[in-house]
Amino acid sequence: MLTVMKFGGSSVADLEHIRNVAKRCIEKQQAGSQVVVVLSAMGKTTDNLIATAKQITEQPSRRELDMLLSTGEQVSVSLMAMTLIQMGVSAVSLNAWQVPMQTTSTYQNARFKRIDSERIRKELDANKIVVVTGFQGINKYEDITTLGRGGSDTTAVALAAELHADVCEIYTDVDGVYTADPRIVPDAQKMEEITYDEMLEMASLGAKVLHSRCVEIAKKYGVELLVCSSLNRNSGTIVRENTKMEKMLISGVAADKNVAKIRVAGLGNDPDSTFRLLNLLDKNNLNIDVMIQSLGKDGTKSVSFTVAKPDLLRALDLLNDNKDYLGIKKLDSDEKVAKVSVIGAGIRSHSGVAAKMFGALASIGVNTEMVTTSEIRITVLIDEEYTDLAMRKLHETFIN
Amino acid sequence: MLTVMKFGGSSVADLEHIRNVAKRCIEKQQAGSQVVVVLSAMGKTTDNLIATAKQITEQPSRRELDMLLSTGEQVSVSLMAMTLIQMGVSAVSLNAWQVPMQTTSTYQNARFKRIDSERIRKELDANKIVVVTGFQGINKYEDITTLGRGGSDTTAVALAAELHADVCEIYTDVDGVYTADPRIVPDAQKMEEITYDEMLEMASLGAKVLHSRCVEIAKKYGVELLVCSSLNRNSGTIVRENTKMEKMLISGVAADKNVAKIRVAGLGNDPDSTFRLLNLLDKNNLNIDVMIQSLGKDGTKSVSFTVAKPDLLRALDLLNDNKDYLGIKKLDSDEKVAKVSVIGAGIRSHSGVAAKMFGALASIGVNTEMVTTSEIRITVLIDEEYTDLAMRKLHETFIN
Repeated sequence: MLTVMKFGGSSVADLEHIRNVAKRCIEKQQAGSQVVVVLSAMGKTTDNLIATAKQITEQPSRRELDMLLSTGEQVSVSLMAMTLIQMGVSAVSLNAWQVPMQTTSTYQNARFKRIDSERIRKELDANKIVVVTGFQGINKYEDITTLGRGGSDTTAVALAAELHADVCEIYTDVDGVYTADPRIVPDAQKMEEITYDEMLEMASLGAKVLHSRCVEIAKKYGVELLVCSSLNRNSGTIVRENTKMEKMLISGVAADKNVAKIRVAGLGNDPDSTFRLLNLLDKNNLNIDVMIQSLGKDGTKSVSFTVAKPDLLRALDLLNDNKDYLGIKKLDSDEKVAKVSVIGAGIRSHSGVAAKMFGALASIGVNTEMVTTSEIRITVLIDEEYTDLAMRKLHETFIN
Repeated sequence: MLTVMKFGGSSVADLEHIRNVAKRCIEKQQAGSQVVVVLSAMGKTTDNLIATAKQITEQPSRRELDMLLSTGEQVSVSLMAMTLIQMGVSAVSLNAWQVPMQTTSTYQNARFKRIDSERIRKELDANKIVVVTGFQGINKYEDITTLGRGGSDTTAVALAAELHADVCEIYTDVDGVYTADPRIVPDAQKMEEITYDEMLEMASLGAKVLHSRCVEIAKKYGVELLVCSSLNRNSGTIVRENTKMEKMLISGVAADKNVAKIRVAGLGNDPDSTFRLLNLLDKNNLNIDVMIQSLGKDGTKSVSFTVAKPDLLRALDLLNDNKDYLGIKKLDSDEKVAKVSVIGAGIRSHSGVAAKMFGALASIGVNTEMVTTSEIRITVLIDEEYTDLAMRKLHETFIN
């Protein structure tokens, strides 16, 4: 039995929290499992280091920023190993180059390429609890890289995959994955199980429990995830390929306000015009999400799509600069929108979910501007103002 | 031209200090030298990290403590590289494993075994200022080690030796090596030059400007040292094999209060008894310093010697435990003693220095309890209370 346990910054915020985490790791070992622990930096350490760097310059060298940030996890793993040893168990801390965990070269947003498990296995075989720095790696230049948002979760899952761990436990400040954000939908229920695909849809739609990248790796390598709380002993949520329970039609409701709508009108009605638009956006690293296309009475084409809110200004500048090339006659945008989604493996096999969704929203007077669907998700774009109301209504309709 | 510049913790205590250091490094490069900068951790960082570890346990794992402490220099080098880059020059920070700098396995007190200069040379050839973490290395287990007190000076000198640097500049908060501690002897003068041997004697006798280990490496590899201030532009003190100036008889006066005297009496008058005593102390890592041996009227032998003050209790315990084996009849100790020394290459060639020294001390009523000499040093043990008085008198006699 081998377990990878990951604890975030708030779970190791001070020495008392570190002691509590150490106790849980020791219990796990005493229950008969080898234990690899992955830690984030303590509390607000990473934010503070970034703030210090920004005092030097608004755009610190990306390579040097990763050199700086990686110290945060090195502090937490060494203090954790000291604590474990003080409690009488064997333990060793390892950082990215000691494992080693090789990544791509991109600073601040690197991805794992190869993890060598030899050193970790050696330490596990010597009956040690192995405490590994999350969030970081080294690249082919032997420079330190970091993985970006949710990076420590990714480290944990990647290690679990490489080590063929029986389970990867992600400890956080909530005790699992909920059918909706409990702060918005008081009736939201904790799910016992959820599939990778459902979790991916939840993650990409603003449910912040797990980062998409981490779920993608778990799915690819079949790593069973357990999302649970570091503050209590509640059972948590299991994320795996196939859930054992009878599938619910809809497993969750999610909303994302970090979105803006752009509409370009007056495009020529030829297949090439849409291609030129999408190609230009793609080349400029603007990811578009929900998209619809319609033909006007005057024979020109309109395309509406959403981008992440922080990308809006850049997208508008780009489109304005290329107005003639794209043949745009009219360009407008709306920041006051939100995506609301229902997610569930049951959507595959059940028809009528979309109709039921529109009916529910119509019954409370919420207009749906755009729609997009995947096999297990239906997303509508609505007026941002009605987000919470819509969430509660959809939760009531499909889950409670 | 290649210069290694080393700055201690107080010289990089905050971002403003870091900017000032960055300016000096850029000036050096603009004056036509390649520049390698070695930094300590910022301000009190190392002390604070040790204090945190001691909250976990009084005896933190030595391996994990080095893992923790090494983050301090990594923070200062990355912030320094960011600052240099922001000021418009190319720069890169490197920590011990990136150089790499191989050490022995002993945590907290490792020594350099092998430094690979390839990466540093590559970065220098790309016209970068290379900023290297002081105080740390990696051992054969690929674990992080630290070098102990004065470690960053040692890093700087070892790098200068490996890179065949033209000079290794040690920036500190005093502007050179003085003929005596200016806080005690107001007339003390800054020396323009001093030999390695003189500097070694000064360092081992409590002049805290440079650590002995660093001077030993400089002497072994012929690295020219410049000790100067990071706060002003005064000329500093050069440390090299042969000083160009006419040799002064005595170049400095030093005192060390961190010493205690032990006297064992009643030993048998056979050669073996002293050997057994010294051998036992040595095996227990008790370094003895000044030592005298005398034969009493009753035909028994007395041996008096000094140990470092923190070792006194351990030494007394050891001697008490081995009273019978060593044949000790009487054992006493005195903590209220100090070593006072005059140091100078001139002692080699001039007789009468000792006589002049005793005369000077006698003239102010200070009794000399024990004496020891090297080729370039005469040390006497005196009552601790008269340390400052003796320093001033000797300085006046030999230097002013």
